[in-house]
Amino acid sequence: MKGFAMIQIGKAGWIEKEKPVAGPYDAICRPLALAPCTSDIHTVFEGAIGERYNMILGHEAVGEVVEVGSEVRDFKVGDRVVVPAITPDWHTREIQEGYHQHSGGMLAGWKFSNIKDGSMAEYFHVNDADMNLALLPDGIPLETAAMIPDMMTTGFHGAENGDIQFGDTVAVLGIGPVGLMAVAGAKLRGAGRIIVVGSRPVCVDVAKFYGATDVVNYRDGDIADQILKITDGKGVDVVIIAGGSVDVMASAVKIAKPGGRISNINYFGEGEFLPVPRVEWGCGMAHKTIRGGLCPGGRVRMEKLIELVKYNRVDPGKLVTHVFKGIENVEKALMLMKDKPKDLIKPVVLVD
Amino acid sequence: MKGFAMIQIGKAGWIEKEKPVAGPYDAICRPLALAPCTSDIHTVFEGAIGERYNMILGHEAVGEVVEVGSEVRDFKVGDRVVVPAITPDWHTREIQEGYHQHSGGMLAGWKFSNIKDGSMAEYFHVNDADMNLALLPDGIPLETAAMIPDMMTTGFHGAENGDIQFGDTVAVLGIGPVGLMAVAGAKLRGAGRIIVVGSRPVCVDVAKFYGATDVVNYRDGDIADQILKITDGKGVDVVIIAGGSVDVMASAVKIAKPGGRISNINYFGEGEFLPVPRVEWGCGMAHKTIRGGLCPGGRVRMEKLIELVKYNRVDPGKLVTHVFKGIENVEKALMLMKDKPKDLIKPVVLVD
Amino acid sequence: MKGFAMIQIGKAGWIEKEKPVAGPYDAICRPLALAPCTSDIHTVFEGAIGERYNMILGHEAVGEVVEVGSEVRDFKVGDRVVVPAITPDWHTREIQEGYHQHSGGMLAGWKFSNIKDGSMAEYFHVNDADMNLALLPDGIPLETAAMIPDMMTTGFHGAENGDIQFGDTVAVLGIGPVGLMAVAGAKLRGAGRIIVVGSRPVCVDVAKFYGATDVVNYRDGDIADQILKITDGKGVDVVIIAGGSVDVMASAVKIAKPGGRISNINYFGEGEFLPVPRVEWGCGMAHKTIRGGLCPGGRVRMEKLIELVKYNRVDPGKLVTHVFKGIENVEKALMLMKDKPKDLIKPVVLVD
Amino acid sequence: MKGFAMIQIGKAGWIEKEKPVAGPYDAICRPLALAPCTSDIHTVFEGAIGERYNMILGHEAVGEVVEVGSEVRDFKVGDRVVVPAITPDWHTREIQEGYHQHSGGMLAGWKFSNIKDGSMAEYFHVNDADMNLALLPDGIPLETAAMIPDMMTTGFHGAENGDIQFGDTVAVLGIGPVGLMAVAGAKLRGAGRIIVVGSRPVCVDVAKFYGATDVVNYRDGDIADQILKITDGKGVDVVIIAGGSVDVMASAVKIAKPGGRISNINYFGEGEFLPVPRVEWGCGMAHKTIRGGLCPGGRVRMEKLIELVKYNRVDPGKLVTHVFKGIENVEKALMLMKDKPKDLIKPVVLVD
Repeated sequence: MKGFAMIQIGKAGWIEKEKPVAGPYDAICRPLALAPCTSDIHTVFEGAIGERYNMILGHEAVGEVVEVGSEVRDFKVGDRVVVPAITPDWHTREIQEGYHQHSGGMLAGWKFSNIKDGSMAEYFHVNDADMNLALLPDGIPLETAAMIPDMMTTGFHGAENGDIQFGDTVAVLGIGPVGLMAVAGAKLRGAGRIIVVGSRPVCVDVAKFYGATDVVNYRDGDIADQILKITDGKGVDVVIIAGGSVDVMASAVKIAKPGGRISNINYFGEGEFLPVPRVEWGCGMAHKTIRGGLCPGGRVRMEKLIELVKYNRVDPGKLVTHVFKGIENVEKALMLMKDKPKDLIKPVVLVD
Repeated sequence: MKGFAMIQIGKAGWIEKEKPVAGPYDAICRPLALAPCTSDIHTVFEGAIGERYNMILGHEAVGEVVEVGSEVRDFKVGDRVVVPAITPDWHTREIQEGYHQHSGGMLAGWKFSNIKDGSMAEYFHVNDADMNLALLPDGIPLETAAMIPDMMTTGFHGAENGDIQFGDTVAVLGIGPVGLMAVAGAKLRGAGRIIVVGSRPVCVDVAKFYGATDVVNYRDGDIADQILKITDGKGVDVVIIAGGSVDVMASAVKIAKPGGRISNINYFGEGEFLPVPRVEWGCGMAHKTIRGGLCPGGRVRMEKLIELVKYNRVDPGKLVTHVFKGIENVEKALMLMKDKPKDLIKPVVLVD
Repeated sequence: MKGFAMIQIGKAGWIEKEKPVAGPYDAICRPLALAPCTSDIHTVFEGAIGERYNMILGHEAVGEVVEVGSEVRDFKVGDRVVVPAITPDWHTREIQEGYHQHSGGMLAGWKFSNIKDGSMAEYFHVNDADMNLALLPDGIPLETAAMIPDMMTTGFHGAENGDIQFGDTVAVLGIGPVGLMAVAGAKLRGAGRIIVVGSRPVCVDVAKFYGATDVVNYRDGDIADQILKITDGKGVDVVIIAGGSVDVMASAVKIAKPGGRISNINYFGEGEFLPVPRVEWGCGMAHKTIRGGLCPGGRVRMEKLIELVKYNRVDPGKLVTHVFKGIENVEKALMLMKDKPKDLIKPVVLVD
Repeated sequence: MKGFAMIQIGKAGWIEKEKPVAGPYDAICRPLALAPCTSDIHTVFEGAIGERYNMILGHEAVGEVVEVGSEVRDFKVGDRVVVPAITPDWHTREIQEGYHQHSGGMLAGWKFSNIKDGSMAEYFHVNDADMNLALLPDGIPLETAAMIPDMMTTGFHGAENGDIQFGDTVAVLGIGPVGLMAVAGAKLRGAGRIIVVGSRPVCVDVAKFYGATDVVNYRDGDIADQILKITDGKGVDVVIIAGGSVDVMASAVKIAKPGGRISNINYFGEGEFLPVPRVEWGCGMAHKTIRGGLCPGGRVRMEKLIELVKYNRVDPGKLVTHVFKGIENVEKALMLMKDKPKDLIKPVVLVD
């Protein structure tokens, strides 16, 4: 079969591979909708996760089941499914410790286009289908559904880890697709004021649609100064970091109130340290809690997010600015993520 | 001054009283908007909290500050304020234990029309103004603001205590004004499906506006059976009890999943026991947690809820079906709560 | 092989059965130490879980692995293991919802002597060995280790669900072996004063050893009255229910402070309802939270509890008042649990 | 009256001041037992909190009430009281937000020897006596009680913020008096293995008494490497930082497991940033939560800790290596904290 792969650091292209085989608990799917992720760009062109040879890319997919292993109970050939970016090995000690994202080791729940072939191929393999797939109900467009496996679960995890309480003021630093989903998630956890940091008009518009009340542009000065100013020097209850370099941590700590929560969902690809500013962190005493975590995956998470889409609590489809038809356009879609044209938030490729 | 009072159990009417006096930390307000509460009805006509003589009724008010004590720092004459139903004594041991609602004793944070005169008068007294009042910003209509002191904080507390997670299925038992606010609160904590139990068309319409997805009518059979049926026998993640007699607890436990949460915001005025059904509670082993609590009050709570209204996260004004002008109509408004005409959810009296 | 079984309700005895067979993820063990549980008595003589025919009893065991399935990675023949009473199916949807105890349905994580043969036999079967067994380190006596699979995890779960904070006053209602472990668990979560309700001298002595500071005897009057009296009418922060009939719930709610937590670990075998007293529950408004749940099982839980024993944080061996040698004495040990002689807390049978 | 004061940065000595006066809610105490704190040393000799002139030092005291304001209800002249280091203004907005430590601003709950005169004087002033004092019961020695106001509440807060679960492995970095109390607190939250980092024999002995199971000495190599080695590369569930420079954060993150908690109770007096190592923090994705907070103060906290001492859950008196008699020895005791002789953990001055 054909797959669009990282051939080595700096080089991507179509390759031929054997069609994957399902173990007794696994499924083989063909993609119906695919979305490239900024992390695919980091992986290929920046070597963010190290060298890989001929690894098929892609971890955001809606698919159709074409084969199931002998022990799979809940899925059958023909089922349309949402495939999470994170497909843990549920048969590990870490599951019992509470973090499926780290089953088998730190971040090891992330398998597609990291430690195995991804979904940008004619077929892809899903480990433990009963635990990692979720049925896609009728009525949700494929391009909308394609935002659930990573964008929505990641953005919403930012809101969860922020422990937002009714009426809290929340700052979202970065309004790429993940930051936009954090805005939507913050609203759906009960945030009052939502201040976003961003500058691209297409993103600002969608941020407002999802619930942003104030927009801060880094071109207008230091973002911490600006946010402190518009909050009368008080700062915010919750900061969600959804972009930036390691230095963004300093801004986040500065704008958090004593007792505030800082929730990171940004993947930091470079830098030795994230700097926590001593004085603004109260010399260690300010009760400004710092969290950061890989998005939840697995079946139940997908089902719960699907419920939110199905009942119109949120429309992640607003992220999709570009739709392509035909799997051959995966390359074009991926390059869009690299080039970031003005009008882009997120592209989706519909396979059929 | 004049006030509309409970003269004794079974009897309400206008009385004359001395205008209240502010201690050093207190404020005196005149009402701008008043809402009668079902609990005023229980208090007067059912003696729910025991005998009271010549106690002025009312605990849902928006007011104007007309006098402040010498130690009040943050409020001044002329300020328009939201006055919470719960105005704790913040100078008590219980504050440090974490429940201001029970400062000075169980439920003792509830003072208006319970252990002191309420707000249905020319003037009313607010203890500890800096800790118990919140400024009303421009742009929020008075009748909308009058839903914040009790209806909104109570309904939203139901959602908070339900510990709703993204995509959870929630059942709200009872859709009077408090139940309707629980629906809105559940949506704003991230609920997916929201099943409500109710039958009055005016309430059902508003429930749908606030986010209800399914409506169950007790006239169509046992509500637990109905809810189990439409959830394929699985039950729900969270149950919010917002109405009914003590027996509602049995239904709530039956429809909760193992691991589910039951959150009560209903004031039970009668009955010796709430029955927790042994078998459906897993013989004590099902991890179905039962909570119930008086709504949070005080300044910060009001400020946080005001933020939600200000930023259009919710419109509690949809509850208000009847608006009267002139304080003399407080009696008429109260009687509406007693008679419950078909088209009533909540009346408000605008004083000026 | 031979096993000591429930032949039918009211009748127990030795039977012959086929030696169990290990599936690819399973293990077969032979028991090294066995403890009968009061629930075995309820099961056989009161029919608490319904009729069963020729079901081998026992769910508290330390064993030696005699066979492992082809997919078992972490255990091998000859390993000495602690076998939890609760051995969930980790390959179910409920795992992802957070409650392994209810994997596959309410309470369905409890398999031994409930939905499959127990451990009172020459050999017994353990599902999913890598996820459900824990290595027993040297230095822990077998009879001590036999208290971990159920007594310790249950008692400690009572303390966990009570959400005990440093210095809290805790009441433990019932000081059979599970209640005694709740006392030890409460001390190890930071309780200050620990009031126990019990009367048998052998249990009272061990309760004091584990940390009880006050003993209340039901023969001296109503236990709620007594506990309220010795706490100057304030009640306690946390109540752990570890015995009694359904009516114990009324006492528990009465003695809990507003904001208090009631944590049940008692299996209620009879009665239609647990009565929550309306007035003392603050008419639904007192923030007295009621929890109840089956003990955690599985590998990591056992490993964590083993750590506590290994590092001398607690000695569950103090529960063991009677030690028998030879598996044939299982019957005698079980009958002790039925007859409850004065000097009994818990018997253990050492097989070799 | 006489008081031992910071005269300016770098200089301490006895000064004369007016005896303080009690406002209506306040109390005046005379000290019975005083303990100098390392932070007094930082304050005077390193200027850690900036310049102060003639500010009396000391914030760890047991006292006797000699005067109470007109509104004080629960304390009277002659009462012996534990005086917390943190005496918040309970009449502030931040109280309702949940962090009394930051009432009136970040860290502003810390008043003694920071923003007002401390307790190393003939008399000292306590704001809001009913909310900030706790009765000392008979039977607790004064020098033991003097460890409660800061050492015990701080160390135990480290354990609380670590969210320790039964059987967790905990590392305590630094075993000065606060670190030692963190060890005791970790044991009392249910820790299994407790690894401490320290080298002074007097501290190591007491660490073992309080529950340490493993000792790591920085002289034997990098502490992170050592701790990873003795945990088979897995790291620990919880890290409590109780000493070190800002760089200790890097070690803490390295040794925490994915999903682990890092709890800081160290006051960082120097350095611009605390470095969070990017790779070991999972590039922002590892769910290693970082908390840090000033110790809780106020009345209820002191009462709860007193309960723990009263019921022999912990003996903070083991910290006290040097006892002086006579207030004039405060200077000598303080200088001990500066010079840190080999046999010192904590000195106490008994005034009478």
